[in-house]
Amino acid sequence: MAKISNKINQGNYFEDFSLNQKIVHPLPRTISEGDVSLYIALTGSRFALHSSDELAKDFGYEKRPLDDLLMFHLTFGKSVQDISLNAIANLGYAEVSFPNPVFIGDTVRLETTVIGLKENSNGKSGNVYVHSIGYNQKGQEILNLKRWVMVHKKNPQTVLGLNSVPSFEKTTPLPKELNIPTVKSVDKQLTGGEFVWGDYEVGERLNHIEGITVDDSDHTLATKLYQNNAKVHFNDHMMKQTPMNERLMYGGHVISMVRTISFNGLQNAQWIVAINSGAHANPTFAGDTIYAYSEIVEKIDTPRDDIGLLRIRTVGLKNITPQEVESPFEEDGKYKKCVVLDLDYTVAILK
Amino acid sequence: MAKISNKINQGNYFEDFSLNQKIVHPLPRTISEGDVSLYIALTGSRFALHSSDELAKDFGYEKRPLDDLLMFHLTFGKSVQDISLNAIANLGYAEVSFPNPVFIGDTVRLETTVIGLKENSNGKSGNVYVHSIGYNQKGQEILNLKRWVMVHKKNPQTVLGLNSVPSFEKTTPLPKELNIPTVKSVDKQLTGGEFVWGDYEVGERLNHIEGITVDDSDHTLATKLYQNNAKVHFNDHMMKQTPMNERLMYGGHVISMVRTISFNGLQNAQWIVAINSGAHANPTFAGDTIYAYSEIVEKIDTPRDDIGLLRIRTVGLKNITPQEVESPFEEDGKYKKCVVLDLDYTVAILK
Amino acid sequence: MAKISNKINQGNYFEDFSLNQKIVHPLPRTISEGDVSLYIALTGSRFALHSSDELAKDFGYEKRPLDDLLMFHLTFGKSVQDISLNAIANLGYAEVSFPNPVFIGDTVRLETTVIGLKENSNGKSGNVYVHSIGYNQKGQEILNLKRWVMVHKKNPQTVLGLNSVPSFEKTTPLPKELNIPTVKSVDKQLTGGEFVWGDYEVGERLNHIEGITVDDSDHTLATKLYQNNAKVHFNDHMMKQTPMNERLMYGGHVISMVRTISFNGLQNAQWIVAINSGAHANPTFAGDTIYAYSEIVEKIDTPRDDIGLLRIRTVGLKNITPQEVESPFEEDGKYKKCVVLDLDYTVAILK
Repeated sequence: MAKISNKINQGNYFEDFSLNQKIVHPLPRTISEGDVSLYIALTGSRFALHSSDELAKDFGYEKRPLDDLLMFHLTFGKSVQDISLNAIANLGYAEVSFPNPVFIGDTVRLETTVIGLKENSNGKSGNVYVHSIGYNQKGQEILNLKRWVMVHKKNPQTVLGLNSVPSFEKTTPLPKELNIPTVKSVDKQLTGGEFVWGDYEVGERLNHIEGITVDDSDHTLATKLYQNNAKVHFNDHMMKQTPMNERLMYGGHVISMVRTISFNGLQNAQWIVAINSGAHANPTFAGDTIYAYSEIVEKIDTPRDDIGLLRIRTVGLKNITPQEVESPFEEDGKYKKCVVLDLDYTVAILK
Repeated sequence: MAKISNKINQGNYFEDFSLNQKIVHPLPRTISEGDVSLYIALTGSRFALHSSDELAKDFGYEKRPLDDLLMFHLTFGKSVQDISLNAIANLGYAEVSFPNPVFIGDTVRLETTVIGLKENSNGKSGNVYVHSIGYNQKGQEILNLKRWVMVHKKNPQTVLGLNSVPSFEKTTPLPKELNIPTVKSVDKQLTGGEFVWGDYEVGERLNHIEGITVDDSDHTLATKLYQNNAKVHFNDHMMKQTPMNERLMYGGHVISMVRTISFNGLQNAQWIVAINSGAHANPTFAGDTIYAYSEIVEKIDTPRDDIGLLRIRTVGLKNITPQEVESPFEEDGKYKKCVVLDLDYTVAILK
Repeated sequence: MAKISNKINQGNYFEDFSLNQKIVHPLPRTISEGDVSLYIALTGSRFALHSSDELAKDFGYEKRPLDDLLMFHLTFGKSVQDISLNAIANLGYAEVSFPNPVFIGDTVRLETTVIGLKENSNGKSGNVYVHSIGYNQKGQEILNLKRWVMVHKKNPQTVLGLNSVPSFEKTTPLPKELNIPTVKSVDKQLTGGEFVWGDYEVGERLNHIEGITVDDSDHTLATKLYQNNAKVHFNDHMMKQTPMNERLMYGGHVISMVRTISFNGLQNAQWIVAINSGAHANPTFAGDTIYAYSEIVEKIDTPRDDIGLLRIRTVGLKNITPQEVESPFEEDGKYKKCVVLDLDYTVAILK
């Protein structure tokens, strides 16, 4: 009889976390041209700044920077095996910011501090609140985020009495100065859209016309590319034994699809400055067609002549067009079954 | 109540085009190593010149040039949102040429002139004829093509009386000098095929033995990679409400699959010099297995010692082997249901 | 009537091989950043040495070397059209080694010598034994392997009386000196695992916890990326006429999936030094979920302070967890239907 090894990392349970604990996540990743091409192939992203070195020079960059969400996924994916391998649910994001641009050839890594721990009343699980910071190879911050997940307890009998919940800002505090070069001269025929900061109004709603169907290979390729190894996305055999009955799409891929769909109407909003909050209202599965609409929540001016900010709420839908959905909520205040994402974020857009 | 925005680009309708109109397409694209690898993964292409820098040097290049069809898709994809987002059908191609090679690191873009407009007698649609030219970052022409598409009218009542139809050459005029370096010394063991220009005969038919099945993820990944956003390829929810009932494969991906399949028998035909005409005879859907056969239509000599030209007709089939299909046509002259592509093109091949 | 060409390469049959025959395989391949990203997306590989240039420097490399299996597939794939296009079965591997590391930008090619030919008693087929060596653009050996395949005869009537069977070493002879730089200083938080050579025991069994479901697009993309054109992997129309009834997954992709799954428990085993033997016990199809367990067969010390060797047997399973499978064999000594791979290989691991 073989001796069964205890060298398998089973992931952390609620009891394994401690307040102020610091975690260095494994798998620093050198970002390549391949990652960028795959991101376009997997999402259909068309934001022009990230497609062309020549256009990036017009924008004031030396070469095309990485799409903020691609960088997010590649960096964030590393935290799964330490934070959320045994997660029951990703409960929320807050104060997500992108302090410095990332380029092909950069190597990104992630570190996390546990900032809150709250035992749930059922005794079976607890919420873990973390603050994660991503760095490039020069040690510069490239990602800063807080999130909280519900994690199983190893031993439901033990009562730990932990009840430390951090407070979060409703919107990510904006930096004093945007880390975006001065835009030199951009031909709006090349970005694909004529509308700029001054054209948008608070309360305006954009019903994006594109719908994109996602298949199993698409979302699993994306999630494997990010080296995110959460089992629910990959293991159909295991999922067949759960009420979901199939592989669940990585929520980050839903965010990327929705951002891609929002291109038509927001073509000049090339930068995500902050994600203020986000909810994965319902799960997404292979075969679902993703649609989206966006509402302009707030216009934030900057001292700059070239760039202004828009706070946007983009709602992701499945298998229904935006025209058919006036509000994401049912009358009882719960999300409608067709809503897969409710994202509150701030973009920079050409003036 | 939110104010519904009018900032969404709904695409151009027949009335939106005017004769001699010039369109600068958005999304210049820097071509990367990732695009090249994805093209191989998505098509299985095995033409050796595009696989190896070392072999490309034997061919007289500094490094491996891009596969002509990959360049075509990446450049052409940009025109969809302006020309064919509301297209009913892609009616044809003519005079397609590849004036200069493209390399990894180059940035390509596309401009179009409207060269013809013909209102259809039913009043509901019209044909738009365009001449598109692709450029690299140095302003050199890298693609030159004409095509025509049938586009919906916004208002079927309005009669515009447009009836301007350009004439096209039956075959693309050949350049005086091929833009292909002098071949240094190529080991035909490395290209995978022993046959050269002198070995082929007019009338010879090659029944290619490979068949490749295409799945939804394959063709949608390819089409998203090209940033071609034609809705029929991506939106299963929408297509379910049409007679097709599912996503339609991008015709360009069919051309690439057929070209890949033609490798076995035409291994030394590394360059596409021209596409003379092409018809997507029937639609292709996920699950179809593509086969192909090629007929040598014409042998065209050149003053060069290293390279000759072959004009080839390659017929793409679905779910039937070439041995079973003597002619692509039914007795009434219509394409058989199994024919998905009828391509007339000119290749350069080693002598 | 068209003249049917005889220029199609139908692949080699048993009679086409001769003892000591040398074959230069076509399609040298320049390895790109795109290949590396696709490999991660297609397999979910997380071995840290291959993910990060920065970490590779800590390991003593100038930049991240290629994953040994990715190099194997890209190099090996070239032999299919000459050796195994008409293969009935891949019977085995032996003495596989990886003499030199390969990097992005290198160009790999493959040459083969026929080292054995054995006619089967049924007269319909024969076994072909080959020794293949892969080279980089400098002519350095990067892959060395022996394998044998069962190939159809063109003419079952002809008796050739060939019965030359080479002998193979049970385990690949180890090089006097490992071609691995001296490890400088690696933070095991970054490799994702704390366990090193000294921690493992002979007889220890690791039940890897991850299961990964493979879809048709995944395995066909991988196999096309490697320019491996074996028809059984791609042609669903043809396979529907066989007892298998669907496309068969490339065995090499199964090896890669199993290696990926073995990461959790063997995180510091970054290098495959040898594959001693391997059996594809049962076929794998789209929809199968791959699991794996590993047994430490042998601990081999080296004179080095930084690296030791482990000989490992990893068993790949489909649709069943390792906990449920004590032995890969039935009572009659045959492989259980759930076993898809039985791999005996030697890894280098941090001390």
